[in-house]
Amino acid sequence: MGIGNPMVDEKLAQVPQILKETGFDAWLLFARESATLHDPCFDLVVGPNVTWQSAFLLTPQGDRIAIVGSLDKANQEMHGHYPEIVGYVGGVSGELRKVLERLDPKRIAINHSVNDTMADGLTHGMYLTLVAALEGTPYAARLESSERIVAALRGRKSASERARIADACALTCDIFDRLTPRLHAGQTEKQVAALICEEMDRIGGLTLAWDPDHCPAVFTGPESAGAHAGPTDRPIEPGHVMNVDFGVKKDDYCSDLQRTWYFLRPGETAAPSAVQRGFETIVESIRAAKAFLKPGVKGVEADAVARSYITDRGYPEYPHALGHQIGRTAHDGAGLLCPRWERYGTLPDSVVERDQCYTIEPRLPIEGHGIATCEEIVAVTADGAEWLSRPQDRLYLVK
Amino acid sequence: MGIGNPMVDEKLAQVPQILKETGFDAWLLFARESATLHDPCFDLVVGPNVTWQSAFLLTPQGDRIAIVGSLDKANQEMHGHYPEIVGYVGGVSGELRKVLERLDPKRIAINHSVNDTMADGLTHGMYLTLVAALEGTPYAARLESSERIVAALRGRKSASERARIADACALTCDIFDRLTPRLHAGQTEKQVAALICEEMDRIGGLTLAWDPDHCPAVFTGPESAGAHAGPTDRPIEPGHVMNVDFGVKKDDYCSDLQRTWYFLRPGETAAPSAVQRGFETIVESIRAAKAFLKPGVKGVEADAVARSYITDRGYPEYPHALGHQIGRTAHDGAGLLCPRWERYGTLPDSVVERDQCYTIEPRLPIEGHGIATCEEIVAVTADGAEWLSRPQDRLYLVK
Repeated sequence: MGIGNPMVDEKLAQVPQILKETGFDAWLLFARESATLHDPCFDLVVGPNVTWQSAFLLTPQGDRIAIVGSLDKANQEMHGHYPEIVGYVGGVSGELRKVLERLDPKRIAINHSVNDTMADGLTHGMYLTLVAALEGTPYAARLESSERIVAALRGRKSASERARIADACALTCDIFDRLTPRLHAGQTEKQVAALICEEMDRIGGLTLAWDPDHCPAVFTGPESAGAHAGPTDRPIEPGHVMNVDFGVKKDDYCSDLQRTWYFLRPGETAAPSAVQRGFETIVESIRAAKAFLKPGVKGVEADAVARSYITDRGYPEYPHALGHQIGRTAHDGAGLLCPRWERYGTLPDSVVERDQCYTIEPRLPIEGHGIATCEEIVAVTADGAEWLSRPQDRLYLVK
Repeated sequence: MGIGNPMVDEKLAQVPQILKETGFDAWLLFARESATLHDPCFDLVVGPNVTWQSAFLLTPQGDRIAIVGSLDKANQEMHGHYPEIVGYVGGVSGELRKVLERLDPKRIAINHSVNDTMADGLTHGMYLTLVAALEGTPYAARLESSERIVAALRGRKSASERARIADACALTCDIFDRLTPRLHAGQTEKQVAALICEEMDRIGGLTLAWDPDHCPAVFTGPESAGAHAGPTDRPIEPGHVMNVDFGVKKDDYCSDLQRTWYFLRPGETAAPSAVQRGFETIVESIRAAKAFLKPGVKGVEADAVARSYITDRGYPEYPHALGHQIGRTAHDGAGLLCPRWERYGTLPDSVVERDQCYTIEPRLPIEGHGIATCEEIVAVTADGAEWLSRPQDRLYLVK
């Protein structure tokens, strides 16, 4: 069976059923130099990277056919995911046309999508190359977006995929637990980030789930930069609300969690009521969204549950989606729990499916103190949703 | 000045002149989730990744304008590469149209290319998004491939870029020197690869220049798999020619070198004449190609020098290009030293420029023994080329 990745075999086994559901006769992945410009679907159904223009064809009947440059052939063979591997020297188009004539697919899915980055791995230059290679055949006119295939394949986590995400979440919660007793006012955001990385390295076998620029992201106080910025030299002051956005990758699967701390002022033994109320509003809005989630609801509806919970209590709405799917990447694409804003395209109407894994991550500002956030992760079940993370249920206090 | 990367500032400073040369009024980078689907030009002229749909505009007048999702804004500001940063909440198109109306560019370059992966970072879905965003404006019809910009910008290495490549080469040669005394017949390809990685880790601060699947690649004997496959459990036998393809990345810049060893049979003190002749043919073909290289020659001409040197001596031609550019990636795109084969598109006609850095890597089979290869790296000078690697000038013998 070669040196292939069992996870790739697991995902490849899901493909025929999904092609039947979506009505496609073939799914065509087309790429070159895939280590440099990496189609995220390669991690799911290809495995090893290719150098030259390469085509991977999958069908509802279970065909797996690879057409690769001759010097990539041995590497593909060693991985063993594709029983039929055609090597070429001059150019890919002749062999590709031959295979397509043999399969004669009526509907061909290719990886482009306006809505979903994870289904958009085909570059525009490679799209033009593909259309030119198919000129004069009926197949150029049969190309469609693979976004429904990719959303289903990537979104429906197998039991072992869900277990890996839960494992990454558990380790992340451990890191937060080890962090809290090491915190004190006067530390800077950067120093807190360094402590988190130190605890991560102590566990071992983990890498950051996203860009080290802002993983971990640490924000303290009422003037903090807002999500997706890196930690600064701003010192934490008594009376600050501090929040952290952090995730790890373990065995190719990610966590992505946010937690909130309050730094007590001299004489305080609890957070001020405004801080406590803000934190509880976040926690309750997450619980409300989780209680609403189940197969069949729309992303926009789940987002609205948490969004209205927060605005009904007098807070401004969060300037982003409620949650995204998570898996091999922190932002795992496809269905999103989001409002109807231009930047989300058709995603608000995406339908929640069983075995998808979502973050839930509202935020709200607490005037004079900072930003309250929590981010949890849930897996959708047959009739609801279950926690993959151990949710933050009380505000962490730092003396 | 923020926490930006000085190398990004160095490359940004080259852009206005290159836009003037190529006759473009604006270069537009358009991306989302750039950590997942990474336009290689981001490393050159953007720096930090973005989450939401984002546009980066550069002009011959030196304008640097970023339009990013509101939550990405602070991170871009902290890096300091773009003096003008516009944040948006709903969607990118309104702000993008406003900026384009203000600049009113007649020719706009975007990152798509049939020929060059490095200039092909715009996905097809993002291309469709961009065209839709510009609908009803004159700008959708003014979009052209940025391949000439990217080729010039990426290819023309600054002195500090060339120094980093030379540094990576020197460390790689050190690793080969440490490897040779540790070799003996009976080791497998995988064991040799492990020794190389061990020596790399001993130096520290280095990562592999390409996929760990086949970096290092190790091939021994007449039945070896050929380039771009990973090492196997095949044991090295006396009488084998073994070759290694290996590169490291140091401070973001790569090496990519190949070396050849011969494993002496009992009683031998030198390689058989057929092996020696094959090795020398490789070395001399590299010297001939280097002597030919200078600004103004075409890639196909340089390839033909080495190719004909080899075939004139009765060997089959190598089934790949003579050499590629190297820099931030081992395969750094743009101008290639290659034959006129379909898979190379228009690259055979690319013209060699000063300060480009190329590999030279012919190969030939030695019947009954294995494959002879060397891969060296040169920088093109005002009137020739100079070594960045210390070339292999004698066959390495293992007792």
